[in-house]
Formats: sequence, structure tokens, C-alpha cells
Amino acid sequence: MSRCTAPSSIPPMKDLTTDNITENVHIVNSQCPDPRLRYLLNRITTYLHDFARETRLSTDEWQSGIQFLTEIGQISNDLRHEMILLSDTLGLSMLVDSINHPRMQPATEGTVLGPFHTHDAQNVENGATLHSDPDATPLLVVCSIRDSAGKVIPNVKVDVWEGDSKGFYDVQNPDRAGPDGRGVLVSDTNGEFFFNAIVPVPYPIPMDGPVGKMLSKLGRHPNRPGHVHFMLDKEGYDLLITALYPRGDPYETSDPVFGVKDSLIVDLSSVTDPNMAARYGVELGTRLLTYDFVLLTDQEARDLRRKNAIEAMEKQKRKVVFHNGLPVPADE
Amino acid sequence: MSRCTAPSSIPPMKDLTTDNITENVHIVNSQCPDPRLRYLLNRITTYLHDFARETRLSTDEWQSGIQFLTEIGQISNDLRHEMILLSDTLGLSMLVDSINHPRMQPATEGTVLGPFHTHDAQNVENGATLHSDPDATPLLVVCSIRDSAGKVIPNVKVDVWEGDSKGFYDVQNPDRAGPDGRGVLVSDTNGEFFFNAIVPVPYPIPMDGPVGKMLSKLGRHPNRPGHVHFMLDKEGYDLLITALYPRGDPYETSDPVFGVKDSLIVDLSSVTDPNMAARYGVELGTRLLTYDFVLLTDQEARDLRRKNAIEAMEKQKRKVVFHNGLPVPADE
Repeated sequence: MSRCTAPSSIPPMKDLTTDNITENVHIVNSQCPDPRLRYLLNRITTYLHDFARETRLSTDEWQSGIQFLTEIGQISNDLRHEMILLSDTLGLSMLVDSINHPRMQPATEGTVLGPFHTHDAQNVENGATLHSDPDATPLLVVCSIRDSAGKVIPNVKVDVWEGDSKGFYDVQNPDRAGPDGRGVLVSDTNGEFFFNAIVPVPYPIPMDGPVGKMLSKLGRHPNRPGHVHFMLDKEGYDLLITALYPRGDPYETSDPVFGVKDSLIVDLSSVTDPNMAARYGVELGTRLLTYDFVLLTDQEARDLRRKNAIEAMEKQKRKVVFHNGLPVPADE
Repeated sequence: MSRCTAPSSIPPMKDLTTDNITENVHIVNSQCPDPRLRYLLNRITTYLHDFARETRLSTDEWQSGIQFLTEIGQISNDLRHEMILLSDTLGLSMLVDSINHPRMQPATEGTVLGPFHTHDAQNVENGATLHSDPDATPLLVVCSIRDSAGKVIPNVKVDVWEGDSKGFYDVQNPDRAGPDGRGVLVSDTNGEFFFNAIVPVPYPIPMDGPVGKMLSKLGRHPNRPGHVHFMLDKEGYDLLITALYPRGDPYETSDPVFGVKDSLIVDLSSVTDPNMAARYGVELGTRLLTYDFVLLTDQEARDLRRKNAIEAMEKQKRKVVFHNGLPVPADE
């Protein structure tokens, strides 16, 4: 008996059946002192049980699921984030981003960070050339940043990254000597930043792990439509992690990680004005991507998150209180 | 472009928002050729998204969940099944057992297999002594096995296993030389089997991994009420994996893996009849556990599973078809 701690003082569980086990798990978990964690546990348990109960999940299927999740953990390491890839391919990552970085017109929408952002990109001047890829089609990128009232925002740190003309990011190169296809810019006094990128191409997400096997079984292709990543960061403004997708990519409407949004699809053009070519130091005819980013302030994003949380709780006919800024039903 | 396969011919996804991403994930997953897998994916995606949407899951919470599941996979190996422990402690294992081995009166209910069953237990005669533990309180176990019509069932293979008087199973002993506290019996022509066990004591589930950390955070104790495990196996009968719990254990109503059911709680008595003591070869006053097991036939269990599946689907107002014996909504 010495190996065991004192029994708990929670209400006793009732006779366990398929129909009442969920409420019994809630009884045991009701001991959790953190109201937000208690709420999350209650909901995930309910949904997990409803899933098994509704579908009549078989023992073999349960076993396959256990094995699948275990293998995903086992293949993961500091460089490979297979559990995030699972979340990405189930649309959960995109959903969590949408919830946490809500946008209202005219603010720019966010999208998935993806696994290829690094922290070693160099600070570069506006006009810098990011890639050393000789096979790529050059692309001039010219952008502005404003707030929701239309005021320009200078001194925004702009982290940009992009794959090469074969669809590989620098970190996928086993001989990587340093960053390539990435850089950190700062918006100027006009809220403008510009750099020389390449016309992006589609590429497959890693298919040699459990998530790849899952996609194959589901008959899904692994190819992301080509895009350029942007992370816009300035104190007082809600962090914007997003990407721009040139229109017409064959995978535009079937992205395996659900990152494409209509407002992030852009029409490429070309530099046809000699003054513009001179100003940005590119040849006439260079492919051109322009975009006007709009940031929300921290306060605007916080208010929007709170409003959305209250609405989501009202849909469940529950009043809400906030615990460390996160919602919990008042009657929980 | 050569790294990418042909685009799919599924309907295009629509503009992705918090509210419509779920149906868009369904569009992409609708390519899955297996109707049962397609149905499971549809339901788990819906529930996962509803969970995030309802609770307004924060990016930090999502990150903690990803990390938690990854660590569970990483600590798992052939001897340690941490993902099963997670399923056990969330009540999912018990629920899946209930769904797959449904019981109706007077059939004996099942419970969780647990992580301590082995395949190296020796075949022993009725009356065998399973433990070498000198500190334990001996317990005579006398059981019968019948079918639901009351007919005795001989020749049932009965696998029994139990921890020692300190609450450890033999496999937890790093110096384990062979099986101890376990054996495989066969029911005799009267459908009876009996053996010498020990009065079981409570014991904690492993607390040195991510699941243990979770239980601590939830304020839950890790202690299972004492029990003796049974697995009853005979061709033509639904496999019965169950356990018996002596009444009055301090953890009887708060089992961390939700294995206790009222019908599996037993009152221990003592051998007071000299004839009985002589018949079973034990001393007068020996502690006694008696139980009458009732097995369902395979056909009875299959019919019951099917009936329950149809009812579960009707609750969702859907007609059901069966695919390899498992239900799929007819309109899926």
C-alpha cells in the first residue's frame, strides 16, 4: 500500500457503460485546479468519446491510430516536425492561426507558418537579391504596409523566405552553408519594402513519414502551390504570418495544408515602365509582384479575438469568463 | 515542376475561413477510396475543428498539445506503451472495449486489458499456485463459466494475471527470470476452474512520462484499485477480457483508467467449510473469491454490435450500410 497516495475526495464514479463513461471521465478530471485546462480536457474528452461512440470505432482501428500517432512522435526531432505536419494536413494549423490572428477588412489575412522558417536569415537592405539560384525566373516584389486607417507603418521588420526554382528550401539542402532564399528587411518611411525574389514553384511536403503514408491512403497529392512567405512584426501590431500565392498554380485549389486564401492570391505582372525599372534597379520585363499589406494593432486583434470567443461561447448557449485572456464557460 | 505529381480532379476548395475550413478539408479528403476510412476522417476532422473553434484554442495551447503527443511517441517502445496509457487515462480504451465487446444480461462485462498481459505464462492445472510472493495473503479463486442460456462451457482457455503484494507485476521486476503471478488454465467438464492467487492490492500506473505529468497537472491520483485479470477464450465465443475488483478498495470509485464496473466488484469471503477446504486443498480460513462468468457466442456479440451500430447511426438520423462489418452512413 505504501506505493499509493491518498485517495481523492471527488464524487464517486458511477457504473461505467458506453453511454455514461464520458461523464465519469469528467468527474475524475474535475479535480483539475486550472479552469481553462479543465475546460479543454472536458471538451476534447467529449469529442474523442463521441467520435468513437458514433463511428463504433473498432479495436483494430483504435490500435492503428495509437500506432500512427506513436510513429509520428518517433520520427520527429528538432529538424523534423511530423506532428505539426499532421496538424497542417488536417487543416488544424490553419484553423488555429485563423482563431488566434483574426482579421477584419481591410486587414491582410494570415496563413500557415510552415516548417521552413529559420532564425538565421540575414538583415538586408531594400532591393536585396535573396536567391543565388541561377535557374530561377527573377521576380521583383514591391510592397507597402499600412494600418487599418490607411496610415503607412515604417520600421516594420519583414522576414521573407521562399524555396528555389526546384521547389526546395535551403534547409532541405544537406550541404547548406548558410541562408539562401531568405532575408529580413525593414519597411521605409513610406511604409514600403522591396526585394528581388524568384517566381515561386509548387513543391511536395515530405512524404517519407507516417503523414505521407496517410496522404497516399487518402488519395491526396502532397503538392503545395508556389508561394512567398512573409512575417511582419512591429511592436503594438498583431504579428502577421502570411504568404502570397501567384494565381494559376495547378495546386491552388487543393493545397495539402489548406494555406491558400482568395485574398492572398496575386496576379503577377511585369515591369513595363522604364522609370520603375530604374527606380528598383531591374531590367524592363522583369516579373513583378506588388501587394499592400494592412496590419491590425494588438488592441484591434485582441478585441476581435475576444468578440469571436464570446460569440463562439454564445453559440453553445453559455456565458463566458476570461482566464488569462482565454475563454472559459462561466458555468464550467 | 518535376517533383510534383498531377493535380487532382476534386472540386476546388473555396475561400478558407475559420467557419468553412472544415468542409474544405472534407472536400480534399473525399478522394479517399475506402468508405470507412473516409467516414472516420470526416468525423475526426469535424470534432478536432469543433474543439479548436469552440474553445478558441490558443497557439500556445496547440503548441503544447503537439509537443505532448510527440513526447508520448518518443518515450514509447516495445515494452512501454505510453500512447495506450494516454488512451486509458482519457477513458477511450474502456469505451472502445465496450463498443467492440458489447454485453447483455446475463453476460459478464469486459474491462481494459492493461499493459501487463504477457504471452509467456505457463499452462497450469486447476488448483495451481500462481505466485511465489511470501508476503502475500493467499486467495483461493473458484469460478464457473456458462453461456447465456446457463449451459456450462468446458475447455475454455483462461489466462489469469495479477500483481504481487507490493503492487508490482513480474514484468516490472528488472531481474525477472520468468513468469510469476500468472498462468493459463482450462475449464473442466463442469465449466469450472480454480487456482491459488493472492489478495490484490492497489498500485500506481507509470508516472515518470508525459501521461504521468498530465495526471499531476489535472490533480488526479495514479492508483488503480487492486484486481485480478482474466482472459477467457474459446472458439465460437466472444473473447472476454475482464478483471475482478475486491469491494472496498480506496480507489474503487476513482480508477485512473476507468476499468471498474459494478458487476465486476466482488465480495471476498473465507473458506469455512472443511469439505471445501479439502476439495480445493487449502487451509480453513483461506480468503475466497468466487465468480460465475457468462460468455456470449460470437454470433450473439456480432448481432449486438450490429444492432448498437445501427442505433448509433439512427441517433445521427442517418441510414447505415456495412463495409467489412463496420458501419458507414449510407449517404456518406
